[in-house]
Amino acid sequence: MILRAQFPSLFLHSSRFNVVLACMLAMAPMAARRCVAQANASPYAFHNTLMPQPSSLEAGSGHFMLTADFAAATDKSHDERLDEAIERGMKRLAFETGLQFSTQPTAGAAAQFLISVDGPGEAVQSVDENESYSLTVTEQGVHLSAATDVGVMRGLATLEQLVQNDGERYFLPAVSIQDTPRFRWRGLMLDCSRHFEPISVIKRTLDGMEAVKLNVFHWHLTDDQGFRIQSKVFPLLTQLGSNGQFYTQEQAKEIVAYARARGIRVVPEFDMPGHTSSWMVGYPELASAAGPFHIQTGFGVFDPVMDPTRESTYRFLDKFVGEMAAIFPDQYMHIGGDENNGVEWKQNAQIQAFMRAHDMTTTAELQAYFNQKLEKILEKHGKRMIGWDEVLTPNLPASVTIQSWRGYEALAQAARQGHDGILSSGYYLDHMMPASTYYQVDPIPAGSTLDATERGRILGGEACMWGEYVDAEVVDSRIWPRAAAIAERLWSPQSVDNVDDMYRRLRVESLRLEALGMTQISQEDASLRTLAGRQEIAPLQVLAATLEPVDFGVRGAYSEAHHVTTQSPLDHVIDALRPDPPFRHRFSMLVEAYLKSPRGRSPQEAKLRALFEQWIAVEPRVEELMAHSPLLAEANPRPAQLAELGGIGMEALTYLSTGQAAPAGWRASQLAAIDAAEAPVALTRFDVLDPLRSMVNAVEESPGAPPVQ
Amino acid sequence: MILRAQFPSLFLHSSRFNVVLACMLAMAPMAARRCVAQANASPYAFHNTLMPQPSSLEAGSGHFMLTADFAAATDKSHDERLDEAIERGMKRLAFETGLQFSTQPTAGAAAQFLISVDGPGEAVQSVDENESYSLTVTEQGVHLSAATDVGVMRGLATLEQLVQNDGERYFLPAVSIQDTPRFRWRGLMLDCSRHFEPISVIKRTLDGMEAVKLNVFHWHLTDDQGFRIQSKVFPLLTQLGSNGQFYTQEQAKEIVAYARARGIRVVPEFDMPGHTSSWMVGYPELASAAGPFHIQTGFGVFDPVMDPTRESTYRFLDKFVGEMAAIFPDQYMHIGGDENNGVEWKQNAQIQAFMRAHDMTTTAELQAYFNQKLEKILEKHGKRMIGWDEVLTPNLPASVTIQSWRGYEALAQAARQGHDGILSSGYYLDHMMPASTYYQVDPIPAGSTLDATERGRILGGEACMWGEYVDAEVVDSRIWPRAAAIAERLWSPQSVDNVDDMYRRLRVESLRLEALGMTQISQEDASLRTLAGRQEIAPLQVLAATLEPVDFGVRGAYSEAHHVTTQSPLDHVIDALRPDPPFRHRFSMLVEAYLKSPRGRSPQEAKLRALFEQWIAVEPRVEELMAHSPLLAEANPRPAQLAELGGIGMEALTYLSTGQAAPAGWRASQLAAIDAAEAPVALTRFDVLDPLRSMVNAVEESPGAPPVQ
Repeated sequence: MILRAQFPSLFLHSSRFNVVLACMLAMAPMAARRCVAQANASPYAFHNTLMPQPSSLEAGSGHFMLTADFAAATDKSHDERLDEAIERGMKRLAFETGLQFSTQPTAGAAAQFLISVDGPGEAVQSVDENESYSLTVTEQGVHLSAATDVGVMRGLATLEQLVQNDGERYFLPAVSIQDTPRFRWRGLMLDCSRHFEPISVIKRTLDGMEAVKLNVFHWHLTDDQGFRIQSKVFPLLTQLGSNGQFYTQEQAKEIVAYARARGIRVVPEFDMPGHTSSWMVGYPELASAAGPFHIQTGFGVFDPVMDPTRESTYRFLDKFVGEMAAIFPDQYMHIGGDENNGVEWKQNAQIQAFMRAHDMTTTAELQAYFNQKLEKILEKHGKRMIGWDEVLTPNLPASVTIQSWRGYEALAQAARQGHDGILSSGYYLDHMMPASTYYQVDPIPAGSTLDATERGRILGGEACMWGEYVDAEVVDSRIWPRAAAIAERLWSPQSVDNVDDMYRRLRVESLRLEALGMTQISQEDASLRTLAGRQEIAPLQVLAATLEPVDFGVRGAYSEAHHVTTQSPLDHVIDALRPDPPFRHRFSMLVEAYLKSPRGRSPQEAKLRALFEQWIAVEPRVEELMAHSPLLAEANPRPAQLAELGGIGMEALTYLSTGQAAPAGWRASQLAAIDAAEAPVALTRFDVLDPLRSMVNAVEESPGAPPVQ
Repeated sequence: MILRAQFPSLFLHSSRFNVVLACMLAMAPMAARRCVAQANASPYAFHNTLMPQPSSLEAGSGHFMLTADFAAATDKSHDERLDEAIERGMKRLAFETGLQFSTQPTAGAAAQFLISVDGPGEAVQSVDENESYSLTVTEQGVHLSAATDVGVMRGLATLEQLVQNDGERYFLPAVSIQDTPRFRWRGLMLDCSRHFEPISVIKRTLDGMEAVKLNVFHWHLTDDQGFRIQSKVFPLLTQLGSNGQFYTQEQAKEIVAYARARGIRVVPEFDMPGHTSSWMVGYPELASAAGPFHIQTGFGVFDPVMDPTRESTYRFLDKFVGEMAAIFPDQYMHIGGDENNGVEWKQNAQIQAFMRAHDMTTTAELQAYFNQKLEKILEKHGKRMIGWDEVLTPNLPASVTIQSWRGYEALAQAARQGHDGILSSGYYLDHMMPASTYYQVDPIPAGSTLDATERGRILGGEACMWGEYVDAEVVDSRIWPRAAAIAERLWSPQSVDNVDDMYRRLRVESLRLEALGMTQISQEDASLRTLAGRQEIAPLQVLAATLEPVDFGVRGAYSEAHHVTTQSPLDHVIDALRPDPPFRHRFSMLVEAYLKSPRGRSPQEAKLRALFEQWIAVEPRVEELMAHSPLLAEANPRPAQLAELGGIGMEALTYLSTGQAAPAGWRASQLAAIDAAEAPVALTRFDVLDPLRSMVNAVEESPGAPPVQ
């Protein structure tokens, strides 16, 4: 029988495997843990670490043992892209298992791994490309079938996640999966303007995207801080607007091909009419003010904006869009359209005269005029326009797609007006929220009042990685593994919403992503070693696990106050730390489990005690490292604070485990100490405070007045 | 006064700094440690972590504090390459210190950091390029002067290594350095045929080379296992000979430019007439046998070899060399010339007839004929020939340079015959020797009987990274940091030969290299996490520190027996482990220090006890990880063996510290157990056995016969 994740109430079956699945997919965490224990009773039981979860899955009995005889064959259509995708997948399976099997697929021959695909799919992958697949593992072999090459890629990503072992050999558990994405547009936006990212970073990002079934790489190529794509028609765009850091057209084509090979569309963004300082350094005639212009090094919203009243602007854009349309084959072209402050338009007498002549009273109306003209240019070059919220103005053609950074309501409004839309509000990775926060944001949330037609216009969503504080070294830890949680939200059924289970699988996925070349775990250690100037950083790792970067707002305010620019080195403690470090959720789970029955000795109590002892023990050792590293010492007094938090934890543990009451006022004083640790230090925040508060609050106090201070 | 490293006997001065320097540069390890302790008495004392050591250095008094006002200016010549090199250096200094100073140099203006360079240097950097520089840090500022841009690059690399801190701020200690390399040719060969390495790997390798002042990137581009450079004249070379993995001409030019920007020459190698299977897949007319030919996937010496008797071969090579000469501007072109087994020549009747007609009795004579013809072709295209030992045959023009994989004697012989030579024997990184072994190999060893003219022909040496077992993930840990020890041997005075001090500085250099983008430390952890399938790998790290890869011979024999190919995944324990892990030398030093006064309690005794306890403690934890990872479990019974070694260490510690005698026969039985741990397991070897033997041998035994077993 089929276990449909959409209907968790159907999960209550007698089969052990089905119970496991029910737990894995959508049940409460305690139930999930109980089930894992059951499943592990047999090494061949299916252990679900799939991410994203498939739309339906049935675990069978038995397993398929992987050996050196493993081989793939295509029995229907096949083409070069498909063969290469299969070979890459087979190589990854070989790497996972250490087996030296042949990785190149044969055509038509019988093989243990049979791939049946109807045809290659669309010549230019569209938003409607069929990505569905079905994957069956039996004791006899593996069968993957799909309508398109892209469907096979999605199935291969799932297959790699199915590999288990019995301690001696690797196998695939028997399973039958029918999978299709919930949303058609599952994107990741990467801002390569504020900091340039090398081609190697883009490629590994695409590898990671393929692994978690994201299908749109939204490439933010131009902004005030740098023009990053070569134009041969307008060479000064990069010659004067990029500081030499840009992608050649060859490289851009290489990325488009690399993405296509992975079933990923590339949507380029050329942000206009605002966010265009870098354009105007070489082409001041585009501007609404006199200039001179320079590449911005600061962050925020700047005044330079294109002059929408001159026909020469559109002649320029016509040529430019035409040139870019030949490099980027995707149907969509992103024109940005955000954060034009209108200052230069208001200060320009000629533009003001134009507005009066056209009965415009607001700069928004003028931008609407610009958008309509630009949309015609895109249409001429065969492109559909997509822009940020602000492009949604009256008279905008319904063909324009809205990407919402403002929120679901703005998106719903657009859908009601007939526009397609994608959600990015709530998916800003640079906001440094935990994966669980992003995971709970839905492009069509429960309770949405959109009708079926309007819902159909919500294409999906995009994680956004803005580039103010990311370079080639730190960008992976800002994207991964949190983007995998968003990928699941966009691919899997809405009912897949168990946060604890998501974190369980995210830990596994993070390791898989590192094996694919991402560096989100390794880079933290490497940065801590650089900061410490030592190879042994165990005490520092204990502290780092309890800290994470402050959110975007706090960092932004600090950056403004301290004149941080695109040129400022990203070499501080905050740059080393990972957002939502694995310890955060683990500690929270541990405290939650402990507080369910705190009395007496328990494994949880012992673990917590060891942790708190460690927090106390590392203080002098981290301080010793800080004494030899001014950059590391910026995070003082974090070690002393952690030791204090450890002390609070130990006291709470003692009261709770013995059942003794604390003196009156104990809770208030401990909570005050915890509150004091909330303040940012060197742009770091503790990730352990709420669970500690829960522990303190669980302690009973003796009746009576608190002691006199 | 100047402290010349060449004359350590001059080092005995009263100045505290000079004493430190003397210790750092060339003295015994105990003396060095004592001096470091002295130096650390003041936070502003010069702490020498330079690698390679400069040829002369005088420490001054005082220091120059780095602040946000730090800025660079060029007061004589400057050009784009120089400005970019300075900006890169300034960015690295900014990263080291977290300071937001301006990183672009100004021309002619006064600045804290003044750079005086006579001119850009040679249009195409030659083997004789002037790389000397002088660097002076005073309380007032920094002055770097050099004859050429490349000299400035070498000085910048030194300057970055001078940065120290006082716990609160970063500074440069007052110092005066006059530096010039001992050898002109300081290379790293990278074999990109047996495994292809992406451009990003090549670039970071060049970054690492610049940091340690290596100046020749020898790019092994063709071999039996793949033809890796695009030829437009002969497109089948890569179309049929590369499996799609090759460098385009654009990419090759990009690498040449990237290297030139760092003062590094690129010498391409096209190995011929043997090692040419990949050529013949597309162009069988080059071959000495009928074919068909295929890209080799195994390793070793194969039969396919060019037919040197046909003029068509030389017409082909003339065109090919001409095409490559336009891509690679270096004066030298490497033609390989090694390991032609002559089998096909002996089997080919036409070739045999040719040999008889030309009075040749050996295939070596025929190869000499080929070399002479090829040399003419290179000369025609403005290139000097370089080849491996085998090209050294009678009648070879003296202009041909010999790269010796056979040893110093072969090199000396060549020098006596008038040939320039570079040493690679003893510098094979794939042999997995410790840095200390390479460090003690000298292109002109003490006792050399070459006269001054002949010595002048020894241009230098090259570290060789052959590609059988390295891919993009593991290659860094195979090259770094060990290549830095070879770089020092080739740059620094011969008298700089203190192994312990080299290791002290190598630890620091390894961190610097990781900060530059190498991954030799991080990748071990990442690979162990992948092997374990866990994020927490502390117990596994304890085991890994005591293990290293077996040497090339053992791995080669295993590979042959198990049919390992270029397609075999490099995902085993051996691939995760680092050669010469830092723990190896540290443990050896610790045991050595302990054994100097083993009686009673000492810091060394406590450290050793903690270590041995750890070895015992991790056994069950590593075994638990192995129980869930067949790939990791390949290294069984290493955990149990480590625990046993820990037990032996604990017993030895107890006897030695208490002064008690062990029972008769104790030593023999412990040594037998240590010997048993010598045998390779999963291609790993323990790196702790010799120090343990020293401890066991230091234990006194009771007189009398050993107990009956």
